[in-house]
Amino acid sequence: MKKILNAPQDYADQALQGMCLAFPHLYAQSGEAGRVITRAAPAKDKPGIVSGGGSGHLPTFAGYVGAGLLDACAVGNVFAGPAVMDCIDAIRAADNGKGVLLLFGNYGGDKMNFAMAAEMLEAEGIETRTVLASDDVGSASRDERVKRRGVAGLIYAYKVAGARAEQQGATLEAVAGVAQRALDNTVTIGVALSPCTVPEAGKPTFSLAENEMEMGMGIHGEPGIRRGPLLAADTLADEMLSTLLKDGGLKAGDRVAVMLNSLGATPLEELFILWRRVQSGLAAQNISWFPPQIGRYATSMEMAGASLTLMKLDKELEQLLAAPVASPWWSNAQ
Amino acid sequence: MKKILNAPQDYADQALQGMCLAFPHLYAQSGEAGRVITRAAPAKDKPGIVSGGGSGHLPTFAGYVGAGLLDACAVGNVFAGPAVMDCIDAIRAADNGKGVLLLFGNYGGDKMNFAMAAEMLEAEGIETRTVLASDDVGSASRDERVKRRGVAGLIYAYKVAGARAEQQGATLEAVAGVAQRALDNTVTIGVALSPCTVPEAGKPTFSLAENEMEMGMGIHGEPGIRRGPLLAADTLADEMLSTLLKDGGLKAGDRVAVMLNSLGATPLEELFILWRRVQSGLAAQNISWFPPQIGRYATSMEMAGASLTLMKLDKELEQLLAAPVASPWWSNAQ
Repeated sequence: MKKILNAPQDYADQALQGMCLAFPHLYAQSGEAGRVITRAAPAKDKPGIVSGGGSGHLPTFAGYVGAGLLDACAVGNVFAGPAVMDCIDAIRAADNGKGVLLLFGNYGGDKMNFAMAAEMLEAEGIETRTVLASDDVGSASRDERVKRRGVAGLIYAYKVAGARAEQQGATLEAVAGVAQRALDNTVTIGVALSPCTVPEAGKPTFSLAENEMEMGMGIHGEPGIRRGPLLAADTLADEMLSTLLKDGGLKAGDRVAVMLNSLGATPLEELFILWRRVQSGLAAQNISWFPPQIGRYATSMEMAGASLTLMKLDKELEQLLAAPVASPWWSNAQ
Repeated sequence: MKKILNAPQDYADQALQGMCLAFPHLYAQSGEAGRVITRAAPAKDKPGIVSGGGSGHLPTFAGYVGAGLLDACAVGNVFAGPAVMDCIDAIRAADNGKGVLLLFGNYGGDKMNFAMAAEMLEAEGIETRTVLASDDVGSASRDERVKRRGVAGLIYAYKVAGARAEQQGATLEAVAGVAQRALDNTVTIGVALSPCTVPEAGKPTFSLAENEMEMGMGIHGEPGIRRGPLLAADTLADEMLSTLLKDGGLKAGDRVAVMLNSLGATPLEELFILWRRVQSGLAAQNISWFPPQIGRYATSMEMAGASLTLMKLDKELEQLLAAPVASPWWSNAQ
């Protein structure tokens, strides 16, 4: 296992500890086992936003706690959902009496645990709303969107909901509404080239032959649409883009946000090689774009591969996307 | 070869094209073959700063062109130095009549080509100064510092020289002076876990057994200090830190900038696991630190491994490090 770690069972905890130690002006650690990340300087007088999910995807999820983004995040083991108690603690930490948006990916364990937490807190008078990311077009057909997994598109929802929540007089309903609208307009497709290793398992999550890729594979190695020979970058970009344009119903005159995300090992060079083609494909369809997000936003540790996300923009979504933010993982210089 | 590319010989060019297309407000491409990257909005009335080097290390080198950093960069093929003509064009582009600092790594080809370029431009009346990064303690002993290679420490020199050059009335001498002082106080050690593949070669640059690492390996796979079993993260952090503290002559009461850099595939989780231990090691020595740089600053495409850099700070270096910058690859939120 080519990983830098101590005891495999300490991987998630030590990674979180290190993140909070590195950026004490941004993050604080709480919860029974330190699995709740909150802002070092908690916000006041605004609807809260909480997310949660497994470890192994940094900067997703906990890295996006910060001004203009999340208030708190509940963190599970590598590729496992957060515990109910941590969901509860995260929601409590994010609550300022204006309610809390629960914004996370469409996975069974996460849904169940957040639902239990929300129900228990309702009794305490904390109002919550839940919005799920289900942007992964590789995980189910468009007719079965409710089955689709959430992947990198969730970050766009963090960004727009986070910016909306900071606006004066924002309500939980408005914040949940804009997160839902963002996600209703967001589609992602991923491609995997090589696996990662979950520390406690000690072996790769799947195997792919030397010249093979899997289109549509999930960020935990869930099966995708098809396996096949590794395509040339331009062919790959064309296939990913046309899949998203069709699934998202995008058409000439639309404007989109575009995230080209490395799953971990795939270098910036290769994202930029893909970008040339994605950009010319968008231009050919007369679709315009907001300055793109290109880098590592939602990873699977050292997995090689990439995902492409499109969010169809309206005026408000674009303003929220451009709003200032204090995070090492979101640059407004882009 | 698990890489996303078109023709291998187009890798470097298409990556650069994609970067400039993605961020047209930051970068412009020029030079005979597009291998010179300049600021989209060139600076005026300041000493210029030019760097250069091979492709395959993004965001190093060309990514650091931008306000508060470099004015121009000459880019070679993957792991190969830039051409003389591109060095010339980069220097010309960066010149505003106040001279140009040539700030790059201590590699034979780069030195020779920049020296030829500088000599030719001297005849045109463009004054240059050269400052070389030779921060890699794994590449030669301290007594032979002139033989040491330049690695991630170069980024700190970009940052402080870039900030100094933007100050009113800055002279070439002052900018070169602060770059040299930064590098005189900067030491880096790297560790490699697995290789990368140069596209045109089509095979890994070296091989390491499943449970093996190489301490001190260079960013092009140059031999390091020793091979051995992959150490536990804490042991690895201790060894890297103690090597740097000793080599850099750091002592109680000193203050440092710290960069913990992934060579590509190694995920943020593992950098944060290392960081806990690096931070406690610094604290134990009563050495304080500026908010650390943790991420991918100088990579070798998909190589797994990490480097640790320390720069001993004085008041001016710290102020320059904290100065504003417009770059997707340097976050002041850190």
